[in-house]
Amino acid sequence: MPLMPSWIASANDPTGDFPLNNLPCGVFSNDPHDARCGVAIGDQVLDMAAIEAAGLITLSETPVFDLPYWNDVMDLGPDAWETLRARLIDLLRDDAPEQAQVAPHLVPLTDVRLHLPLVVSEYTDFYAGRHHATNVGTMFRGADNALPPNWLHIPIGYNGRASTVVVSGTEIRRPNGQLKLPDADTPHFGPCQRLDIELEMGAVVGGSTEMGQPVTVAEADQMIFGYVLLNDWSARDIQAWEYQPLGPFQAKAFGTSISPWIVTRAALEPFRSDTPAREVDLLPYLREPGPMLYDIDLSVLIMPDGGKEEVIARTNYTEMYYSAAQQLAHHASSGCAMNVGDLLGSGTISGAGKDQRGSLLELTWGGRDPITLADGQTRTFIEDGDTLTLTGHAQGDGYRVGFGACAGTILPAVEFP
Amino acid sequence: MPLMPSWIASANDPTGDFPLNNLPCGVFSNDPHDARCGVAIGDQVLDMAAIEAAGLITLSETPVFDLPYWNDVMDLGPDAWETLRARLIDLLRDDAPEQAQVAPHLVPLTDVRLHLPLVVSEYTDFYAGRHHATNVGTMFRGADNALPPNWLHIPIGYNGRASTVVVSGTEIRRPNGQLKLPDADTPHFGPCQRLDIELEMGAVVGGSTEMGQPVTVAEADQMIFGYVLLNDWSARDIQAWEYQPLGPFQAKAFGTSISPWIVTRAALEPFRSDTPAREVDLLPYLREPGPMLYDIDLSVLIMPDGGKEEVIARTNYTEMYYSAAQQLAHHASSGCAMNVGDLLGSGTISGAGKDQRGSLLELTWGGRDPITLADGQTRTFIEDGDTLTLTGHAQGDGYRVGFGACAGTILPAVEFP
Repeated sequence: MPLMPSWIASANDPTGDFPLNNLPCGVFSNDPHDARCGVAIGDQVLDMAAIEAAGLITLSETPVFDLPYWNDVMDLGPDAWETLRARLIDLLRDDAPEQAQVAPHLVPLTDVRLHLPLVVSEYTDFYAGRHHATNVGTMFRGADNALPPNWLHIPIGYNGRASTVVVSGTEIRRPNGQLKLPDADTPHFGPCQRLDIELEMGAVVGGSTEMGQPVTVAEADQMIFGYVLLNDWSARDIQAWEYQPLGPFQAKAFGTSISPWIVTRAALEPFRSDTPAREVDLLPYLREPGPMLYDIDLSVLIMPDGGKEEVIARTNYTEMYYSAAQQLAHHASSGCAMNVGDLLGSGTISGAGKDQRGSLLELTWGGRDPITLADGQTRTFIEDGDTLTLTGHAQGDGYRVGFGACAGTILPAVEFP
Repeated sequence: MPLMPSWIASANDPTGDFPLNNLPCGVFSNDPHDARCGVAIGDQVLDMAAIEAAGLITLSETPVFDLPYWNDVMDLGPDAWETLRARLIDLLRDDAPEQAQVAPHLVPLTDVRLHLPLVVSEYTDFYAGRHHATNVGTMFRGADNALPPNWLHIPIGYNGRASTVVVSGTEIRRPNGQLKLPDADTPHFGPCQRLDIELEMGAVVGGSTEMGQPVTVAEADQMIFGYVLLNDWSARDIQAWEYQPLGPFQAKAFGTSISPWIVTRAALEPFRSDTPAREVDLLPYLREPGPMLYDIDLSVLIMPDGGKEEVIARTNYTEMYYSAAQQLAHHASSGCAMNVGDLLGSGTISGAGKDQRGSLLELTWGGRDPITLADGQTRTFIEDGDTLTLTGHAQGDGYRVGFGACAGTILPAVEFP
């Protein structure tokens, strides 16, 4: 599919994140207006609440855009999502008859503050990147036992903490926690010394299931409203001491950043891609009826306090072994009720190459092999004042579907009472 | 403290769960009225929405009781909780002047349907019972490695699934999942064969913390609004295959039952009790300034389909090694934001004796030693049609503070698509 031209000139920039093909969903405020739903187009935000109030879009009898979250729109279901996209394309395409009515409701992106685009009902994080699981497993258990025995059969996941999912730009405070040094008999309590990122995609669930009722992978795919970039900030030293036997807890609870724009599944359709070949057959409930990953180029950037931003890793979402649809079908397979606003982290996305790894743990091989930045500084793990940014886009024919940045700056740990 | 006499005669029964000393918080409906807040007193429910509408209690400028959850009341904070309790005692004590105004707003418990008393923001489950951890560890890792090395230092916990926390009486469907039989090379998918209960107390968080801000144990204690009985239904065979390396997921996601009444911390004050002596010193952030457990007698009952109910285990909440206040302080220690409506499961409560164990896994020692019921049937794990019930009360001087039952009946697994 080629670029869909828009009467908003900046949307036709082939290197821009937000052409008419994209139309991602965010929440924004601009003085003196409260946070409400908006759609990014070029270098503008379309004020969806204003468009709705003007009668240019009607999805429901009660307003659904004059709210600081997209949950109510998602709750209307896939037919409404399609209607919305079709109507937005009609309003914004280069020969749209309503240009004069729409134009007053555009706000420059530079003038707005972006907020979390949804109320996160619950947050689940998976472990579905084969290179990541192999790298981490090799470091911790040796190359022969790198992949756990269940890994090729089951999309391993755990429940994360929804209360600390924040929008890009929110500062993240270095966590305190119990740390046990290798030569210590007992743990001490203090600031994390091995603070890390995890480069992930987040799938936003737009539908729901009843408790006790599973869904097929095909149904799960249709329940996904869209995708965001997701940084699952991780305290490796807290995790090492706490995670046996019940998994990561406070090592992941202090913050998870997502990009401000939910890129809809519809915008990503042209980029569907197969999961990798299976080494062992999957159980029937996990088999995919078609391609359910997406070809999305991903980058990790670091910027030291007062320094210059530079790329430290590049990879692609197609490195995943399990798709979000498979993860969602697995999630509901026990009868677990899924809800609108559930957020599913893909798991860390790493490629095969040394510079394709989605965490510092892997990039520096557990801190043994520091990376050197352009200004000569080195890093093993994140230092106070560092800004870590994820970016991503799917490359189309003369356009790209981008996610905007997912960035966070690290503040020093609080002194403990 | 002795029984506080009430003009409602049934509240003065020394063996009843709901004397004036208790005043637990629930949500009820009775045809044709919608679900709203109520307080149990004797064999009656006091309709709090009606009492508020009649001007007999005012906690806030906007109504807070005409809602199907107690979250808004909790959000008003500890001063409001105290005001509420004092006012209810004034209205319901034997010499209350407003008896005639209050009486029309009592509804017999037999005429109401009880609902989940709160919107569960997030659900966290802990692993803080020493006998339970030792029993399970002995079965899985041998007696010499029963307790994980971190267990005496850290209140081990994991994030659970809030969407399937249900009120007592809700039927629970046997989950399907990936199961790997000991002699099989690969897993299959099918109904859980080792379905179990976990006898726990649930602490209901009534306050909140900001992301990045820890709390002391003393502050955490004051944030707890009250306690419920909690059954953390568990699929042992699903868990065994899935839980490495990131912890339990679908094995616990299909359902968690709680008792319908939140017994407030205030009602439990006379029953405060110390945690057990420490084998190793706790880190300062976990040290308790006073007794933070409660002396609550707990029982597990089973009733086969069409059969008779009988007790299979008895224990006490004082068996916990960590209190809910310690768990909450640990939960926030990394900077994890805590919210009103968060639910913290204590972990399975088992005593030292064979008949004091809070799970069938322990009672039948992994299924090797079946229990025999009064009618001659045996059980290793739960069968379809079985009803499992938890009960609990604190024994006062001539009264008791009870929780009501936490019951669930198991339905057969769904046939998978």
